[in-house]
Amino acid sequence: MEMTVVDRWLLPEGVEELLPAQARQVEAIRRQLLDLYRGWGYQLVIPPLVEFTDALLIGMGRDIDVNSVKVTDELTGRMMAIRPDITAQAARIDAHSLCSDDVTRLCYAGSVLHTKPKSLMASRSPIQVGAELYGEASVAADIEVVSLMVETLHSLGIADITLDFGHVAIFRTLADQAGLSEEEETELFEVLQRKAADEIASVINRCIDDAVLGEQMLALSKLQGDVSVLHRAANLFAGAAPGIIEAIDELQRVAEKIQGRYPSLNLYFDLTELRGYHYHTGLVFGAYAPGCGYAVANGGRYDDIGRVFGRARPATGFTTELKSLLNLATSVEVDGDIIFAPYREDAEQWKQVQQLRSQNQIVICGLPEQNVNAECTHILVDDDGRWSIESID
Amino acid sequence: MEMTVVDRWLLPEGVEELLPAQARQVEAIRRQLLDLYRGWGYQLVIPPLVEFTDALLIGMGRDIDVNSVKVTDELTGRMMAIRPDITAQAARIDAHSLCSDDVTRLCYAGSVLHTKPKSLMASRSPIQVGAELYGEASVAADIEVVSLMVETLHSLGIADITLDFGHVAIFRTLADQAGLSEEEETELFEVLQRKAADEIASVINRCIDDAVLGEQMLALSKLQGDVSVLHRAANLFAGAAPGIIEAIDELQRVAEKIQGRYPSLNLYFDLTELRGYHYHTGLVFGAYAPGCGYAVANGGRYDDIGRVFGRARPATGFTTELKSLLNLATSVEVDGDIIFAPYREDAEQWKQVQQLRSQNQIVICGLPEQNVNAECTHILVDDDGRWSIESID
Repeated sequence: MEMTVVDRWLLPEGVEELLPAQARQVEAIRRQLLDLYRGWGYQLVIPPLVEFTDALLIGMGRDIDVNSVKVTDELTGRMMAIRPDITAQAARIDAHSLCSDDVTRLCYAGSVLHTKPKSLMASRSPIQVGAELYGEASVAADIEVVSLMVETLHSLGIADITLDFGHVAIFRTLADQAGLSEEEETELFEVLQRKAADEIASVINRCIDDAVLGEQMLALSKLQGDVSVLHRAANLFAGAAPGIIEAIDELQRVAEKIQGRYPSLNLYFDLTELRGYHYHTGLVFGAYAPGCGYAVANGGRYDDIGRVFGRARPATGFTTELKSLLNLATSVEVDGDIIFAPYREDAEQWKQVQQLRSQNQIVICGLPEQNVNAECTHILVDDDGRWSIESID
Repeated sequence: MEMTVVDRWLLPEGVEELLPAQARQVEAIRRQLLDLYRGWGYQLVIPPLVEFTDALLIGMGRDIDVNSVKVTDELTGRMMAIRPDITAQAARIDAHSLCSDDVTRLCYAGSVLHTKPKSLMASRSPIQVGAELYGEASVAADIEVVSLMVETLHSLGIADITLDFGHVAIFRTLADQAGLSEEEETELFEVLQRKAADEIASVINRCIDDAVLGEQMLALSKLQGDVSVLHRAANLFAGAAPGIIEAIDELQRVAEKIQGRYPSLNLYFDLTELRGYHYHTGLVFGAYAPGCGYAVANGGRYDDIGRVFGRARPATGFTTELKSLLNLATSVEVDGDIIFAPYREDAEQWKQVQQLRSQNQIVICGLPEQNVNAECTHILVDDDGRWSIESID
């Protein structure tokens, strides 16, 4: 049987199907990760494919809203969206459906849909897998989810990982202190993301009057590199607002613990990396694998997103995408033997076949017009009532 | 932690979320069924959530078209649909993507979306699971998929199953012979489905001139019951068109083999049960469980649906829905022990925790603000460097 990698004929751009060779791997990865998360006490939830837009998209920021496919509910006339992300659904389940005051750990795996691919090679129908921790504000929760993200990649044999850390509170506190308008903040945020040095300086000059704040913002834009960045930041912001000092302290504590647990990891700090800025509230992080231009997993803190569902809760977590992990995972599921049982009408062969299957053997029953499948390795042979399994050469 | 059964607040009607207690069961059932299908040689495929409507809905009949959620592809302006069903996708994969001349066995599990619930209690976002067999025209293929459908339900502990069989070719051949127009055929089809005896007689009188054909059609409408129905049908249609005689012969062969394999099954025959008539072409079947008003699994033959993708292939298969199986399954997944490790900063406890997890134990790491989770059964205790696991009473 031919196993085409991805067949896009007849399929919309950025929408792919997984044929048997890939589908089996994706299923194996899916199970492995959900079992890993269960082992850490994360409970599986299965949120629905669609929700009303006001429940699904609220608090998620404009990028996610624009990137979601919307349809009118024929029963109510209200607007629904196919979920572009499962994180907000998990937050709603924590805040509204489970409604526990305890720490709650949830995980999930499911298809989401985007109107446009997020990047050149990205899927428009990713299979998102993730884990979220609710109800714990301390950095211990961030350390747990970052550790679990690392375990996610290690369990698939993905090595040489670089973790990229940022913290939304530093930029946000400076922007608040400088009294930036929403437009100015957005403009500065965008040039920072593009790392456009000239433009950054020019926007800062134009929008920030306070010389000290302007210098701090400019210095912030250059804070990228290894752990020494955190020492530089600590010096630079020694007298800054408490929110900034606390953020740097959080980064230091997470870095120390994660490096202690996983000495082989490369840690990188970019204090203007504000991934998911519109809904993140604290530490943000991403994992990069060699030769892969995008983050293979990422996450961060998004406290209080559940407020609209009745309860503001501390929240942190991460997500990854199954189909892109497929290309990176080195631990590959291989089929064992496959036994072919040539077509027969009698009940005796059926009994043999069912017994083999109950012993976890794969048995393909031949059909009148079916030859031995190419994938079969063995054949079930009846030698006058003595049944045996012979290898096919 | 409170486990609400299904929470519809904020969720659209007929759209449900699965909280941990249910989600774990659904995941267990999902894995069990995909493993069962793999054991029979059915290979997993993962078709995409959306496709262009012309690829997704073609050949599927008007009911499915109307019941699918459509959106405009922002990249091309072409119309896409969220899949209302995975069967047609599997047929496309067989006909176009895999393109094998051999018998091909595929299985799948995934969310689909309907504009309206199919019945009063049905979900609008079912999780469809199914298995399809391509490339074999003989009744041996139907026997295999019906057997696998029975194994599906038996493996979940669902007993006392009634299998309901029909055959599309009998009605279709009679309608052809009677020269019914499309409108007349649709009208007759609808009154037959409603089993409205008076209306059936009146439509037959009005539309079928040939007295013999009219009598046969009227007799057909009364052919419901146990296996004796097939004997009555054989007598009634002794001199009828070959397609009809062949259909009755197929029903007899399937019934005999299935009853032989599963003597405890109740078999029911309804020769006007034309489930999925618009795309089915031969044997159709459904499985009913006690106290459940809808078919918990159903399927049938749909030869040549792949023609639009370049290859007409014999095809037969069945599907079921994970969330509705949840309410019927008696074999329930139960968690083992859950160990709580109180919050500590040191690396020694982390080593113990990771070792336990690598032995497939579930360990929840306490956080600074976290009490022992209600679901925890044990606690990890450090007695001066001697680690032990103690039961929580």
